[in-house]
Amino acid sequence: MDTPDFTDHIDFLRKETDKALKRLPLPQNPSTLYDPITYALKGEGKRLRPILTHLVGRAFQADPEDLMNAGIAVELLHNFTLVHDDIMDADDTRHGQDSVHIKWNESTAILAGDGIIVLAQLALNRVHHQTFQAIKCFNKAALTVCEGQAMDLDFASGTKIGIMDYLNMIEKKTGSLLGCSAELGGILANQNENICSHLHTFGCELGKAFQIQDDILEIFSNPESMGKSLGSDVLTDKQTVLSLLAKKDNSAEWDKISKEAKELNIHDRLTFLRTYYEKSGIRLKASLLAETAIEEARRCLKVIPEMHKAELEQFALMILNREK
Amino acid sequence: MDTPDFTDHIDFLRKETDKALKRLPLPQNPSTLYDPITYALKGEGKRLRPILTHLVGRAFQADPEDLMNAGIAVELLHNFTLVHDDIMDADDTRHGQDSVHIKWNESTAILAGDGIIVLAQLALNRVHHQTFQAIKCFNKAALTVCEGQAMDLDFASGTKIGIMDYLNMIEKKTGSLLGCSAELGGILANQNENICSHLHTFGCELGKAFQIQDDILEIFSNPESMGKSLGSDVLTDKQTVLSLLAKKDNSAEWDKISKEAKELNIHDRLTFLRTYYEKSGIRLKASLLAETAIEEARRCLKVIPEMHKAELEQFALMILNREK
Repeated sequence: MDTPDFTDHIDFLRKETDKALKRLPLPQNPSTLYDPITYALKGEGKRLRPILTHLVGRAFQADPEDLMNAGIAVELLHNFTLVHDDIMDADDTRHGQDSVHIKWNESTAILAGDGIIVLAQLALNRVHHQTFQAIKCFNKAALTVCEGQAMDLDFASGTKIGIMDYLNMIEKKTGSLLGCSAELGGILANQNENICSHLHTFGCELGKAFQIQDDILEIFSNPESMGKSLGSDVLTDKQTVLSLLAKKDNSAEWDKISKEAKELNIHDRLTFLRTYYEKSGIRLKASLLAETAIEEARRCLKVIPEMHKAELEQFALMILNREK
Repeated sequence: MDTPDFTDHIDFLRKETDKALKRLPLPQNPSTLYDPITYALKGEGKRLRPILTHLVGRAFQADPEDLMNAGIAVELLHNFTLVHDDIMDADDTRHGQDSVHIKWNESTAILAGDGIIVLAQLALNRVHHQTFQAIKCFNKAALTVCEGQAMDLDFASGTKIGIMDYLNMIEKKTGSLLGCSAELGGILANQNENICSHLHTFGCELGKAFQIQDDILEIFSNPESMGKSLGSDVLTDKQTVLSLLAKKDNSAEWDKISKEAKELNIHDRLTFLRTYYEKSGIRLKASLLAETAIEEARRCLKVIPEMHKAELEQFALMILNREK
């Protein structure tokens, strides 16, 4: 589906982001702060958020250097949440390598995350146009991400939730930062409130689709392509879009299925749940939810200048069709 | 030494800060994020940092509302570090109440700290004059605080250090934020670089004196007045200004003393170390270090308009002579 040009362009933006991350003005010392930060940033991230900022910003002719600094800021904010969330969720692997709290320890990981969010602010402070509006948009999103993570903690601790609570949670935890990433592209090009609001919704819906796909891939992809501990949701009995849809669909049957699943070892459990989600049509329903979010996102693209629309359409489809 | 007027003024600023903290626009939900944040902020903090911002800023006729927002920002940044540091240092008590990670759990405390640093940024975004310069000064200090905490982690894990390393660490960990608090008072009143730099040094030296006093009070004050777990430095065998001065003074004797101390229970250990620090003159040497920092701070006050100098002199002496 992707044209070679588009794929090349995305690869180019990813590599430029990686280069800019490597060029971040980090001192050597204290190494207890900067080594784990450098380590966390060299993981194989998809850099979707900065890529989104670049794509939107270039559609409106924003200053490329501003876009790079804003892109670095959103990528850093994302990495800050990963380092801290991995402690909270006891996730051992991230971006194909040990999580920071495993490679070092929890204290070092808390501090590395703290350093990364400050570096994000400092990167944003290097933006030259509409800086103040960009900073406000960024910090509003950062607080919403924290709210989303709080809801996720509640859900993980067994709070009874339905699929709507879950969608609300991922909108905050994942959607708001992708929303901010897209909106920054408009803000830096001095676009009006209506356009920026559509851009925010565009990114936010992409984020929801991304997270739904993440839950699906967690069960259905193979561990090598995901680069993180596959099945950890299953292992920790975490509520996902699949389990919540299954419960909504047939609560009694789902209770039975999840009880049976718990008696199996992790490998058999994964196979058992995969089969159930497939034949009950739950996987399809989850995919439809992701598609609906992508459709909603695409509707917002009406504010994008015509000649750049196709590129952002492709970006949306890339998120929907990703396999890792 | 304090005039009633001065004490009243400080009390007034503290109460106004407490009120402003209570008025922070925090939603109710998710309570997992906002309850621990509200809890952390209602502890009996001294609010020294915002008071310093107000005192300096009023000396230069800065906008009072700006000063309040900047004061809230530095106080929030301070509280962010406390919530996270208490996890890292396993400190159970803070400002007369259970630490956040004790009252809730580590995950909640990590997230609460994250929320607080974002709220700090949002408070600073409400400043109306020289906003951008204030934001840059603030984030530079925030990164330096992280560097100081990294050094503190190294020291706590047994890295061999001397008194100079220690002073460098507290300059970063405590000095930089008090430096920023004072500097913001000048920045918001649009003062030049030279003045702002002196203000920064003023606050920074106060911070060093404060931290040295903290180490002394940790051993010599009574637990009720400190409002935190007294002797926790001793209990965890943490390197402090007292132990480092003792080691520098007579390394062989200090090795013997600290070995003997470790064999005693916490109560006897405190008494034993108190006696040693007193009679060896180490306590006096530590106090002299604090006094030197205060003298250095007072020299920087030459940039303060004459009619406001006395007030800031009193503030410096208040820090030197504090008993809790």
